[in-house]
Amino acid sequence: MGLDLGYVLPKLMFLSKSDEISIDAITLFVGLLCTCIVVGHLLERNRWVNESITALIIGLCTGVMILIATGGRSSHILIFNEELFFIYLLPPIIFNAGFQVKKKHFFRNFLTINLFGVVGTLISFLVISLGAAKLFEKMNIGFLETGDYLALGAIFSATDSVCTLQVLNQEETPLLYSLVFGEGVVNDATSVVLFNALQRFDLSRFTSDVTFKFLGSLLYLFSTSTFLGVAVGLLSAYIIKKLYFGRHSTDREVALMILMAYLSYMMAELLYLSGILTVFFCGIVMSHYTWHNVTEKSRVTTKHAFATMSFIAEVFIFLYVGMDALDIEKWRIVSKGPGTSIGVSAILFALVVVGRAAFVFPLSFIANLTRSSPHEKIGYKQQVIIWWAGLMRGAVSMALAYNQFTRSGYTKLRGNAILITSTISIVLFSTVVFGLITKALVRFMLPMQKHTGNFSDEPLKSTEEPLLMNGHGSGTASNGHGVIHSGSLRMLLATPTNTIHHYWRQFDDACMRPVFGGRGFVPHTLESPMETLS
Amino acid sequence: MGLDLGYVLPKLMFLSKSDEISIDAITLFVGLLCTCIVVGHLLERNRWVNESITALIIGLCTGVMILIATGGRSSHILIFNEELFFIYLLPPIIFNAGFQVKKKHFFRNFLTINLFGVVGTLISFLVISLGAAKLFEKMNIGFLETGDYLALGAIFSATDSVCTLQVLNQEETPLLYSLVFGEGVVNDATSVVLFNALQRFDLSRFTSDVTFKFLGSLLYLFSTSTFLGVAVGLLSAYIIKKLYFGRHSTDREVALMILMAYLSYMMAELLYLSGILTVFFCGIVMSHYTWHNVTEKSRVTTKHAFATMSFIAEVFIFLYVGMDALDIEKWRIVSKGPGTSIGVSAILFALVVVGRAAFVFPLSFIANLTRSSPHEKIGYKQQVIIWWAGLMRGAVSMALAYNQFTRSGYTKLRGNAILITSTISIVLFSTVVFGLITKALVRFMLPMQKHTGNFSDEPLKSTEEPLLMNGHGSGTASNGHGVIHSGSLRMLLATPTNTIHHYWRQFDDACMRPVFGGRGFVPHTLESPMETLS
Repeated sequence: MGLDLGYVLPKLMFLSKSDEISIDAITLFVGLLCTCIVVGHLLERNRWVNESITALIIGLCTGVMILIATGGRSSHILIFNEELFFIYLLPPIIFNAGFQVKKKHFFRNFLTINLFGVVGTLISFLVISLGAAKLFEKMNIGFLETGDYLALGAIFSATDSVCTLQVLNQEETPLLYSLVFGEGVVNDATSVVLFNALQRFDLSRFTSDVTFKFLGSLLYLFSTSTFLGVAVGLLSAYIIKKLYFGRHSTDREVALMILMAYLSYMMAELLYLSGILTVFFCGIVMSHYTWHNVTEKSRVTTKHAFATMSFIAEVFIFLYVGMDALDIEKWRIVSKGPGTSIGVSAILFALVVVGRAAFVFPLSFIANLTRSSPHEKIGYKQQVIIWWAGLMRGAVSMALAYNQFTRSGYTKLRGNAILITSTISIVLFSTVVFGLITKALVRFMLPMQKHTGNFSDEPLKSTEEPLLMNGHGSGTASNGHGVIHSGSLRMLLATPTNTIHHYWRQFDDACMRPVFGGRGFVPHTLESPMETLS
Repeated sequence: MGLDLGYVLPKLMFLSKSDEISIDAITLFVGLLCTCIVVGHLLERNRWVNESITALIIGLCTGVMILIATGGRSSHILIFNEELFFIYLLPPIIFNAGFQVKKKHFFRNFLTINLFGVVGTLISFLVISLGAAKLFEKMNIGFLETGDYLALGAIFSATDSVCTLQVLNQEETPLLYSLVFGEGVVNDATSVVLFNALQRFDLSRFTSDVTFKFLGSLLYLFSTSTFLGVAVGLLSAYIIKKLYFGRHSTDREVALMILMAYLSYMMAELLYLSGILTVFFCGIVMSHYTWHNVTEKSRVTTKHAFATMSFIAEVFIFLYVGMDALDIEKWRIVSKGPGTSIGVSAILFALVVVGRAAFVFPLSFIANLTRSSPHEKIGYKQQVIIWWAGLMRGAVSMALAYNQFTRSGYTKLRGNAILITSTISIVLFSTVVFGLITKALVRFMLPMQKHTGNFSDEPLKSTEEPLLMNGHGSGTASNGHGVIHSGSLRMLLATPTNTIHHYWRQFDDACMRPVFGGRGFVPHTLESPMETLS
């Protein structure tokens, strides 16, 4: 702790000869980010293209230009650094997911979401790992260890459902939306936890004993990480409630929330836990308690500042992936046997499709058993959309693949080069091609959706705003809470999740909120954000 | 541009053995930042202590603990990296200053502010440089070049008036507040521009020819940097006005504003201009045009997000300075002759006091000549407060001193070690001791101020909120614009600045606002931030 840690700071130089390059790189990257946002916004008017696709394509074009400018030597200006990803880019994305999650629906469908997100991801992981191990054996793709196959499973279990969420209308299909969104978040966490657990585990001997130990370690990671996230979130709520009572300072509240969220992530990493789970639950707790203890202005600011940080991080990642896709070195190794590479990509993508089908339909059947009323059941068409929504692969897969198959950004081994290029191909293919089909598919499967009016005019609103709005909305009390009281016994038998939710609400109101604040437990200062603005 | 630039990314490691240390460091630092905010808030109740002092003291305490923990080997966990400062910490602080500046008062007092900020800083720079060169000659402090003396002048011309601003009440003394605030910002920019110009200039032969060339280069830097900042700001306003017309997306608007502001800074650095001036004017233009083109929610978010970023950066710097103050290596060199070091610090601080007096009183006299009405004149007591407000030295001085006297964070030469430790001493002394006296002094000099009620309850509000509020307020049109019409000729003769302001307003309304948007030129969407919040 007291050691000389100067090397942890970015070694960006300033005003000396060798440094212009780094300022070049940052300037170019920031400029490209701006371009992506502007172009993405222009293209989104037709709703066939989203920000991810735009960023990928702009990244590709920039890559081509750099390739030409450097005479074919290099296509990127930054070497992918999974530390950058895990320390700076991932935390805001995951924290924002937890913070913006529509908690009422999330917790009402908690069991189903976890069934899909945890059990489903594990099934998908097994299918892809075993399938890859079986099918790659006969192909000449260089040496891969058991750990590599398992890592492949974890890498390709991480879905990217942003594209589908942009098309779904959560007002018309709230159940479907909540399932796709919730699964997407839990799935991200599960794959990263799985991947990290694999990295720390000796997998040279693969016995049933090791498997049980592995599952135990996974369970330990899940519970301790969640606990840490909840603890930090509650601490932040308590501090802000006690300190700022009657004497608010927006900038400090916002700063404290950002810093404590980040602190939870870094503490988890320090304790070898899963930062992603910790920061996700920290986000949920913060939006449930802390968010209600701050001023009106702090609420608007945090809500949008977190969303913006997450947005920038996502665009950054896709831009990078696009730029890196043309990196010569990897493709040079692969180009000696292009057939093998195409084969590997096709097999992996087929495994993704099969692995997802292998859990969506069976688990939907199981989930439907616990749901009594017909409109609560997951219909066949909805199952297809859930299955489809999880076929796209995105930034998390890329980062995990880089972490596993490149060390210090380069790909020396043939096997690693093939797997990296395959990952890039699958991410590009699934994001661009499947992304473009999604809209048509959803409209075909759910023809009752309205597609006119303000929905197409305000695309981001439809995916983001309502998440928080309803989560904090007054609807929570009347719908979730009130209904149960009216027919308590029937509900208890019919919907166990709702009952858990009901008891949680009682506990929350009686014990938690008086201590940690939260909706209705903090006397509001009578100021509106409008007052000081115009 | 296409070179291999992987090294520009932070070399933070993840999950491998050597990396826990860096996660340690980040976790500790983030934890300390949280502590500073909480403790600072608690201590601010009495208004004798501010965040800077808190951060300095917590940094000092942590330094002591690390010193004990490592057995006296080291006191800091991060080596000061002026690149970190200039690339990440300074831009948000300066941008926020420009963004939150109360434009009406800033532009009305534009000439006076620039007289103090530019001419005054140059006078202070000359006094300190020449004084140091004369007085240090006879002392045994090791070899110093002409460039070092000039750098000293620039370093100690950078004031830190935050402390005084927290005590002044801008409702009761708007002129004084606006002068102190405006001068503080322009002064920061001038010192950094001066410092950078010195770095790029060959100062071995110091002739009048070189002096004129230097002044020319300074003028060039000022004008081009300002132009670039204004251009990027206007571009952002134009893009957001054109693109988002009728179809707003808060997260994208906020992202675009942040990224374009940062882009302006990086572009200026890339073109060897002054990023600090560029980003300051970019901030002013953005708050004048861009800010009015975005949604209500984006306004609240940007206003507070920028203030929060600036706040975190400031606390970070003071925390670091406190932690670094105990660094053993520097003091070891100095401890061989503690008398010399104390003497140097005392002389430098005396020069700061004299250098500031040398321009505040004469320039106030000149400024008063252009002001006709008695209540617009700068009174003697106000002059004393302006003089006092600029005696504190803060983060900018530290960063410039580190840049000049340490290369790669270490101090090998005796002269450099002495000057670094003197800078630390002066920053600590002026911030803590002078900071504590400020409140008493201001109350003594301006006894008519009210010091009860909500003012002392909401300290941050008093310094920050009104800046933007009134700048964007409807008062602008009626006070600035309307008054002139009523007695145009008299005003023209009496107050030239007001007249310039008047013609600017006409030009702004006729040519600028129709193109770039701005207050009253963008049809507002009928949504309030409250709607989606509860």
